[in-house]
Amino acid sequence: MPLIHSATRGVFVISVTPFTDDGALDLASLDRVTDFYLDHGADGLTVLGMMGEAPKLSAEENREIVRRTLSRAGSAPVVVGISAPGLAAMRDLSAFAMDAGAGGVMVAPPSTLETNEQIIAYYGNVVDAIGTDVPVVLQDFPLSTKVRISNATLGAILESHPSVVMVKHEDWPGLEKITALRNAETAGRRRTSILCGNGGIFLPEEMARGADGAMTGFGFPEMMRDVVALCQKGEMDRAQDIFDAYLPLVRYEQQPGLGLSLRKYVLAKRGAIASDALRKPGGRLTAPAMAEVERLLTRQARRLAELS
Amino acid sequence: MPLIHSATRGVFVISVTPFTDDGALDLASLDRVTDFYLDHGADGLTVLGMMGEAPKLSAEENREIVRRTLSRAGSAPVVVGISAPGLAAMRDLSAFAMDAGAGGVMVAPPSTLETNEQIIAYYGNVVDAIGTDVPVVLQDFPLSTKVRISNATLGAILESHPSVVMVKHEDWPGLEKITALRNAETAGRRRTSILCGNGGIFLPEEMARGADGAMTGFGFPEMMRDVVALCQKGEMDRAQDIFDAYLPLVRYEQQPGLGLSLRKYVLAKRGAIASDALRKPGGRLTAPAMAEVERLLTRQARRLAELS
Amino acid sequence: MPLIHSATRGVFVISVTPFTDDGALDLASLDRVTDFYLDHGADGLTVLGMMGEAPKLSAEENREIVRRTLSRAGSAPVVVGISAPGLAAMRDLSAFAMDAGAGGVMVAPPSTLETNEQIIAYYGNVVDAIGTDVPVVLQDFPLSTKVRISNATLGAILESHPSVVMVKHEDWPGLEKITALRNAETAGRRRTSILCGNGGIFLPEEMARGADGAMTGFGFPEMMRDVVALCQKGEMDRAQDIFDAYLPLVRYEQQPGLGLSLRKYVLAKRGAIASDALRKPGGRLTAPAMAEVERLLTRQARRLAELS
Amino acid sequence: MPLIHSATRGVFVISVTPFTDDGALDLASLDRVTDFYLDHGADGLTVLGMMGEAPKLSAEENREIVRRTLSRAGSAPVVVGISAPGLAAMRDLSAFAMDAGAGGVMVAPPSTLETNEQIIAYYGNVVDAIGTDVPVVLQDFPLSTKVRISNATLGAILESHPSVVMVKHEDWPGLEKITALRNAETAGRRRTSILCGNGGIFLPEEMARGADGAMTGFGFPEMMRDVVALCQKGEMDRAQDIFDAYLPLVRYEQQPGLGLSLRKYVLAKRGAIASDALRKPGGRLTAPAMAEVERLLTRQARRLAELS
Repeated sequence: MPLIHSATRGVFVISVTPFTDDGALDLASLDRVTDFYLDHGADGLTVLGMMGEAPKLSAEENREIVRRTLSRAGSAPVVVGISAPGLAAMRDLSAFAMDAGAGGVMVAPPSTLETNEQIIAYYGNVVDAIGTDVPVVLQDFPLSTKVRISNATLGAILESHPSVVMVKHEDWPGLEKITALRNAETAGRRRTSILCGNGGIFLPEEMARGADGAMTGFGFPEMMRDVVALCQKGEMDRAQDIFDAYLPLVRYEQQPGLGLSLRKYVLAKRGAIASDALRKPGGRLTAPAMAEVERLLTRQARRLAELS
Repeated sequence: MPLIHSATRGVFVISVTPFTDDGALDLASLDRVTDFYLDHGADGLTVLGMMGEAPKLSAEENREIVRRTLSRAGSAPVVVGISAPGLAAMRDLSAFAMDAGAGGVMVAPPSTLETNEQIIAYYGNVVDAIGTDVPVVLQDFPLSTKVRISNATLGAILESHPSVVMVKHEDWPGLEKITALRNAETAGRRRTSILCGNGGIFLPEEMARGADGAMTGFGFPEMMRDVVALCQKGEMDRAQDIFDAYLPLVRYEQQPGLGLSLRKYVLAKRGAIASDALRKPGGRLTAPAMAEVERLLTRQARRLAELS
Repeated sequence: MPLIHSATRGVFVISVTPFTDDGALDLASLDRVTDFYLDHGADGLTVLGMMGEAPKLSAEENREIVRRTLSRAGSAPVVVGISAPGLAAMRDLSAFAMDAGAGGVMVAPPSTLETNEQIIAYYGNVVDAIGTDVPVVLQDFPLSTKVRISNATLGAILESHPSVVMVKHEDWPGLEKITALRNAETAGRRRTSILCGNGGIFLPEEMARGADGAMTGFGFPEMMRDVVALCQKGEMDRAQDIFDAYLPLVRYEQQPGLGLSLRKYVLAKRGAIASDALRKPGGRLTAPAMAEVERLLTRQARRLAELS
Repeated sequence: MPLIHSATRGVFVISVTPFTDDGALDLASLDRVTDFYLDHGADGLTVLGMMGEAPKLSAEENREIVRRTLSRAGSAPVVVGISAPGLAAMRDLSAFAMDAGAGGVMVAPPSTLETNEQIIAYYGNVVDAIGTDVPVVLQDFPLSTKVRISNATLGAILESHPSVVMVKHEDWPGLEKITALRNAETAGRRRTSILCGNGGIFLPEEMARGADGAMTGFGFPEMMRDVVALCQKGEMDRAQDIFDAYLPLVRYEQQPGLGLSLRKYVLAKRGAIASDALRKPGGRLTAPAMAEVERLLTRQARRLAELS
């Protein structure tokens, strides 16, 4: 199966982990949601990300998800999140995933890192532990990790480690960071793929700044597919029209913690998974929240119809 | 001038502090922007908030802004942010503001508070220091303050201190918190005014959950005026239509740090202030950001025209 | 092998994990250091604690250490640290450890917990996941976990979960917390064992406040044995004399990060482990640090000779 | 009155702010404690530091303390803490203090700084605001500020701003940082004065690493005077003997928050201030804590007598 690389473009969906109502892994739904993502515009998938409830899984369950997703995803590249408290666990999961055919691994910085030097050293240790032949996605998501990576720090990592081929960009605010990354490449630094997260809420502007696509889990991957494709063709106004139609829901999903319940609710409603249950600890949408989502879905469908 | 109270409703705009290009207070623009806010839908104003660059001002400048705004705002209530590292400074500014005719004061918890008990004790100390006759707005904004206030903690403060008459609600996610606050009132707790912040990005849902209005600084106060008024009349769909037209810009403004540059840019463009300069440290929009804003403004005007 | 319980007393040493110079587990040294601890005053051991470099180990290595320590420790109770990002991993390691004969498990709160309610809910989820029959040590170490547990929060956990039989007390400052815990027991709450950490730096005062002993990893367990025993006999001045002789080294070890290098240096020097190597990432003492330690060791030996 | 400079050596005591039992400034005690510090070994003083309860004071009280201390301190240099949420307040207090004859100002980084670049920019803004002619002490105290300053960051600040003439060193662990600073000077960087904080708990080792003295508030300044003087004469063992005699109390004072109550208790007992009251919020020693301190004081006196 293909590896990600520094020119990878398109839409990678952060895959949910489906559970039954009683918290067991639902592998049938995992197949179904894998198909769903690929049918609705995903070029690749990312499993065991923050939104995949990875820390709630046992080590064996993690491997089961990797195996199952890889066997279902066919030729689409699959990135595997390997963030863990220590290098040994990361090395083990990375080796398993790459042996199984993964396209690369994703690593977020642990919240204990404080200085630029510590962040740079950390990625050096990671690359050293997993091997320089494993393509790495650096997840830059300070809101969640509490680690702020400056442009210079990011540059130092990219320049030292050619295997860091992609940035999952979700610093916030972060548009200037994309511009800075691309400007550094113009000035001679090697190219890096930039896929954007943050639920897609800045996707049109991110594409205009030079991003290569999206890596996030919004329940309508077709929005990301259309916006990315239209932006790549230069049809910015049409891209923004599509985006704006989805924006009320994208915005609603931008509620830390709650967002995943919403994603699963939407995916279950669309038939991609059997149950919207999160594994414990983790709740479900309240009745008022469900009503809010339903209202937004109705309005979204109406607005999309007006646009088509 | 009127005091805020537990039934206060409507739109309070978080006022910017206008500076000249070289960083001096621009009092003529302060008058102008005060008029602008009131002419575009503000029922009240809040000065010296986080978005008012209050920490960059000297103590004398703080007082000058309070005096000037109060003299210009006429009968509209003005809330004064008094958050400071210590109680003595808060007591002094509170006394000055209330003597000058302010409608109340706003207090955010300092980032050093860790437990529920510490948060509760802190507000007890504040009320004790400034006097129980001063109406207090509790600013609940964990993204900025790093202090998470649970429903029980908030309830304990409200039950102990009748002078805390209003919550500036900007927990995130926070819709369930509004519902919890209102449910507690149904169960017997005294009423509290809830005005919502977060740049207005959840305003329709917040109103539906029982909020009394908005307290935030979006550069088009007329959006907040219209959405609040329509929601209060029960015209939720029309409210959402208006909201959705502004949403791409509201969203763009949700970029911590950058947001204020954008607000000042929009206010300067609309003629409300002479210069969009922030006092140092604090930058201006970059050229790509300006282009992004201009594009959003053009689209916003077009969409509003379609809706009218 | 015996379980810990709410009346457990004495000295539990936080065991280091010995590595060879190239970072491999050194199981012969693990046996040796287990013997060393028990020979020098340990009543029990705690493995896979923060100072055991647990996050650097693979899941299989964790199990190996548990198995090996238990088989060597004989009748001494062994506590196993099971803190992990998610409940599934904790449940798995807890089950493995208890099946292998562990005396209980230790759980520190994850740094993401913010409110009293979240902390209380977390321990509820843990007890639910591992089973109410597994004795739990609650590690209260805010300097490292970033989670401040108030007396009321701690009380709520203890009252809800009888299986939480012990507190590893290392809040800082924390003497009043011991007094508050004991006062609550006098007022009717069930008894809890309190063993103190923080490298032992407040051990005499902690014992006087009502602690049951120490759980920490100072390289001279005989200090803790003597101080705890003398305090339990009421010979407070003699206890303090012994303590003061070790205090310069105890203090020197109170250097976060560096402390572990020092402990291993001392243990290697005393013949308890073959190499003072930390697994990567993690350094060794610098030459000036070694000289400082040697000087303190010489002075300590001299002072102890004066006292004997 | 003399300015501090890059070769300043000796003991600067962090001065307490004395209050009456009802929380008013006690200026007579301020004179008395100033005399006490200078009589017991202080070469200089630092007012309005974190342990000076500065945030609890009004702006006018701050100025009163500066004025009063300067008029009493005679020829001893006085450093004034000017840390504040914004540059304008810092500029105002700095100007006032330097006009009144202060020896320099002290600035700690605000907790909002995250990257090396932000820390460097912050000190640039501060120097710009207060003027390049004002001697600055950089307070490097991550435990309290939450800002970790790497050696490279500290070096960049020192190299850019000659007016930063002193580091108040209280990183923890921090001995290697002193060595790194001195090594950088050997390699060509300009000299900086290094005075150490942390209550003096690593003072002998810090002096041996190249520090110029102490800047902290331990209630027995004569300990710091003697240790610094003996270290400077190379009598390291005698220095350590003296230090060890005070260490149990130094250690006891290393309890964040509680430490100040203890300092005031000791100073009141020694007759240096009339009341040990802290201004609200801030408590007093409990009865068990008082007993612990009294016991340590008795033992300390006995041990010092043995040594003399």
